[in-house]
Amino acid sequence: MKILIVLAHPEPKSINGQLKDKAKEVLEKAGHTVVVSDLYQMGFKAVADQDDFQNREDPDFFKMQYEQRFNTMTEDIINEQKKVEEADLVLFQFPLWWGSMPAILKGWFDRVFTVPWSYSWPHLCDKGKMKGKKALVSITTGGTPDYFGDRFPFGDLTKCLFHMLRGCLYFCGFEVLPPVYHYAVEENEQNKIMEQWEEKLKNIENMKPIIFSKIEDYLIQGLPEDKKTDFEVINNFK
Amino acid sequence: MKILIVLAHPEPKSINGQLKDKAKEVLEKAGHTVVVSDLYQMGFKAVADQDDFQNREDPDFFKMQYEQRFNTMTEDIINEQKKVEEADLVLFQFPLWWGSMPAILKGWFDRVFTVPWSYSWPHLCDKGKMKGKKALVSITTGGTPDYFGDRFPFGDLTKCLFHMLRGCLYFCGFEVLPPVYHYAVEENEQNKIMEQWEEKLKNIENMKPIIFSKIEDYLIQGLPEDKKTDFEVINNFK
Repeated sequence: MKILIVLAHPEPKSINGQLKDKAKEVLEKAGHTVVVSDLYQMGFKAVADQDDFQNREDPDFFKMQYEQRFNTMTEDIINEQKKVEEADLVLFQFPLWWGSMPAILKGWFDRVFTVPWSYSWPHLCDKGKMKGKKALVSITTGGTPDYFGDRFPFGDLTKCLFHMLRGCLYFCGFEVLPPVYHYAVEENEQNKIMEQWEEKLKNIENMKPIIFSKIEDYLIQGLPEDKKTDFEVINNFK
Repeated sequence: MKILIVLAHPEPKSINGQLKDKAKEVLEKAGHTVVVSDLYQMGFKAVADQDDFQNREDPDFFKMQYEQRFNTMTEDIINEQKKVEEADLVLFQFPLWWGSMPAILKGWFDRVFTVPWSYSWPHLCDKGKMKGKKALVSITTGGTPDYFGDRFPFGDLTKCLFHMLRGCLYFCGFEVLPPVYHYAVEENEQNKIMEQWEEKLKNIENMKPIIFSKIEDYLIQGLPEDKKTDFEVINNFK
């Protein structure tokens, strides 16, 4: 496979940096081609704004999705789009910050996932523009596992990430693999995380995606009552 | 009340800009004091990184939460913290981008909500550092209401925003008011949105917050089975 790793962490020596290095090593060893977008090292621009367009169709009123149609996005955006286009799988590596991804990665979605490049009605979900590509989300947390969950103070991780897994990745057509959570561990247990990560990655081609609803089921009159909602589906995956 | 409006939209003339202007006007007329953080106009730095600290305690390995303890954050961060400290209510105004907030607002949380300023164990939830402050989230969507919901293709908005409402705002102790969704309308209906917004805002002091679980319920052995989870609570609010 061709694999794009998108990393969002300011410290190369961090666990996130190490997980990225390990992924690159293991995946290349298994014969995959790996490209890395290390957003912090690239100085990736996080804020979507007027400067993202080399020409403005309407210079007086900035409507982002309108401008995107005319395809004058800056080179850094086009480069990332090309990497996604060429990838069979995109691996997102980041720390959980405030129940979600760091701003630099949110900005990657805001800026790179233009319309109609990333979706156009009714090319959504299983009929989405990213159809045939897989997405794997790999997250580190500052809290140990006992802080997370519906009945624990940090809340349920998968529920927090619903906006990314369903609202963004599956929405655009990615087959979403079950996310990998690397919970905080004692320093002397870090080797264990790396070993578990290596085992996961060796099996990457056999990972089964989360099966969400098909767009045609949605389009009739909303998802029929006898079908599980995507939220129920993802929740059963924990 | 002292009200801080945090606006995240690149176009001042947008509906988001207009909703901010309307809020300022209506709230000041009602006798409140209003301060605005217009993140795009301020050129607010979105990406949390090494440059956020005037001195580094550990110059060789960047661990953000560790550095935050020594309180050498840059002035732009301190200024925003002061605004939050002085506010009785924080109003967040932004467009829904990829099921969440624009990166510039995510970056505001990543950078401004330092530790232990924003939370410290067990000062969370109803015992959180933001105790006594209210938060109101006001969002515009590009889709009409019939696209949203558990059984519709864009998914359920409140579920998408769980990471912000519960994972971030209530986590830090804000009383979270029911979010206001301004769904896409025809251009000739925009006046209606403004009128509805004005009515909401006139009643702002009587808005009842969403009642989440108390931290002491979490701390025993996890939330007891006879209590609704915060996710169930927020979901009933739709």
